[in-house]
Amino acid sequence: MDDRVRRHAEILVDHCTDVGPDDDVLISAPATADDLVVALYERLGERGARPTLSWRNRRAGRAYARAMDVDDFRTKGHDLAAMRETDVVIMVAGSTNAAETSDVDPAKAAASARANRPVLEERLESTRWVITQHPTPADAQRAEMSTAAWTDFVYDAVNRDWAAQREFQEQLVEILDPAAAVRVVSGEGTDLSMSVDGMRAGSDDATRNLPGGEVFTAPVPDSVEGEVTFDLPVRRHGREVRDARLVFEGGEVVDHTAGRNEDVLTSVLDTDEGARRLGELGIGTNRGIDRFTGTLLFDEKMGDTVHLALGNAVEECVPDGREFNASATHVDMLVDVSEDSRIEVDGEVVQRDGTFRFEEGFDG
Amino acid sequence: MDDRVRRHAEILVDHCTDVGPDDDVLISAPATADDLVVALYERLGERGARPTLSWRNRRAGRAYARAMDVDDFRTKGHDLAAMRETDVVIMVAGSTNAAETSDVDPAKAAASARANRPVLEERLESTRWVITQHPTPADAQRAEMSTAAWTDFVYDAVNRDWAAQREFQEQLVEILDPAAAVRVVSGEGTDLSMSVDGMRAGSDDATRNLPGGEVFTAPVPDSVEGEVTFDLPVRRHGREVRDARLVFEGGEVVDHTAGRNEDVLTSVLDTDEGARRLGELGIGTNRGIDRFTGTLLFDEKMGDTVHLALGNAVEECVPDGREFNASATHVDMLVDVSEDSRIEVDGEVVQRDGTFRFEEGFDG
Repeated sequence: MDDRVRRHAEILVDHCTDVGPDDDVLISAPATADDLVVALYERLGERGARPTLSWRNRRAGRAYARAMDVDDFRTKGHDLAAMRETDVVIMVAGSTNAAETSDVDPAKAAASARANRPVLEERLESTRWVITQHPTPADAQRAEMSTAAWTDFVYDAVNRDWAAQREFQEQLVEILDPAAAVRVVSGEGTDLSMSVDGMRAGSDDATRNLPGGEVFTAPVPDSVEGEVTFDLPVRRHGREVRDARLVFEGGEVVDHTAGRNEDVLTSVLDTDEGARRLGELGIGTNRGIDRFTGTLLFDEKMGDTVHLALGNAVEECVPDGREFNASATHVDMLVDVSEDSRIEVDGEVVQRDGTFRFEEGFDG
Repeated sequence: MDDRVRRHAEILVDHCTDVGPDDDVLISAPATADDLVVALYERLGERGARPTLSWRNRRAGRAYARAMDVDDFRTKGHDLAAMRETDVVIMVAGSTNAAETSDVDPAKAAASARANRPVLEERLESTRWVITQHPTPADAQRAEMSTAAWTDFVYDAVNRDWAAQREFQEQLVEILDPAAAVRVVSGEGTDLSMSVDGMRAGSDDATRNLPGGEVFTAPVPDSVEGEVTFDLPVRRHGREVRDARLVFEGGEVVDHTAGRNEDVLTSVLDTDEGARRLGELGIGTNRGIDRFTGTLLFDEKMGDTVHLALGNAVEECVPDGREFNASATHVDMLVDVSEDSRIEVDGEVVQRDGTFRFEEGFDG
């Protein structure tokens, strides 16, 4: 077994979820992640914990969804009962065929997600959970990389010194936490201003996502003004929205266009009132990620990106008494800020062309 | 997908467990059984049931057991909670490497089994469950067969007309249920007599095992007399007992020998008082199974075999008021009755050289 698989398992069990002997652990993984599952079981045995193994099988899920009547999806009582007794959840992504569910009716996918919501909420509220990625040939193909190069890419991003990463990110938290105003400018298409006054800045140092690597906050809902053009496609229900552009006035999207699948973007905005406002501003900080690969878990952590999410705000960023943007959706969209770009906080440039003020090579 | 996989799934969902729209179903399967899992999910979707998928992963189980301290195994609370909400369990066997756990300390395997006992009891008492087999190259290798031949063998045994099989077996039930005395004679080494007076005969037509195919009853505990030599090896904790021979007097084993690993046989007999008596007499009836393969699920159903179990009796065979042979163990051992053999019931020959009285070619 690749030593990096064991290191990955150690980070998941030790750093991300801090598993101890009293923990009931649920691992959810596809068969293609067999090596990581074995390494996780070994580590969990060393910790004296109690793992159970759920098989993420998209081929089976597709067959089931296609055979089911859309009205028949209901919450799985045994899954919910198990989650109530679960302390730690380790979710491993990794495709055998990333297009496996492309011929499932989106209405059934939505019905399945709705039925599963109580299990999801139980996980979010009462477990320590983490989502990670095991390198597979199919995901390499989607990234247009060889399997070896994709494998190197994944481990460069996940097998990091997360204590050092936390310190690095603290420098950005110290800027963003007390900030009142943020402006993001990139090329011709993006010049967006917002207030983050009174909001808290959070730091993801790989406790819930591995790789981690972002600092995030919540815009004051009515404060967002300007326009933004997204450089990466947004995937929803198997369809890609390309070249999406949003215009904000008084915090709300007043105009939107897309080069492809604009109707998907429209349907996102029409979800509810909160879906027309921003719920999150995130700034990527992971220097182990050096390219876009079409996998959001990595793309949004990349050190030269800003992501904005339409919809529900991140709870930990909004103190009591501050307005919380509530929505049934949360759709992350990325801006590449590696060139001809800057992030300003309270009128001062804190990042230019992807380089932070506290990094070497910053040209203020 | 091989059509026989879909047929196998239909029999499991329809005949064996009769799954309906109100059922929470647990499928437990190894990754190598992917095709059967997909076919099961499709069928369960058609039935409107709610499946969840547990991944049987021996490689992970081995890594975990080796890393664990033998004293640390405890019942998994999330597994037990899930089983309490489960209506139907479909367990699929199928090896990637049948020797995968050969370097796990048997004491740890036993500790793991003890810890899992509450989950096992919950399954036995409150779910409809079935155990079956998916054909894999590793199991073909163990049977010394090509993968194609093993695959044909498995489907010939499982994809049968089970209604017709039930009728076939009823002929044997009608003989065995009212019987008082049974005698099994085979070659030089086996001549065993017992009373089954007042005991019930049960018929396995594939409700808990697929393949099914046996008729069974419980000997009156103190009635067994004579000797028996077992033709197939018995596997316990990864070791094979070969050429086991038992001598019974007054129902109890008074002498035992084995050609190999006799100490394993001794330890079975020493489990408790009930382990020195017979708990089951089973007669194989599945004519789709035409050879021994070293897989008990198939061997004990073969139409030319008798199996005897040391230890705990089959509950449904022992009416209230009759003596029940209780034991913590139940070890099935096989006699090949295809040649130079006969089964007598109340003094009449009901099977000679593997052919039943109600079959063509019977030579009374």
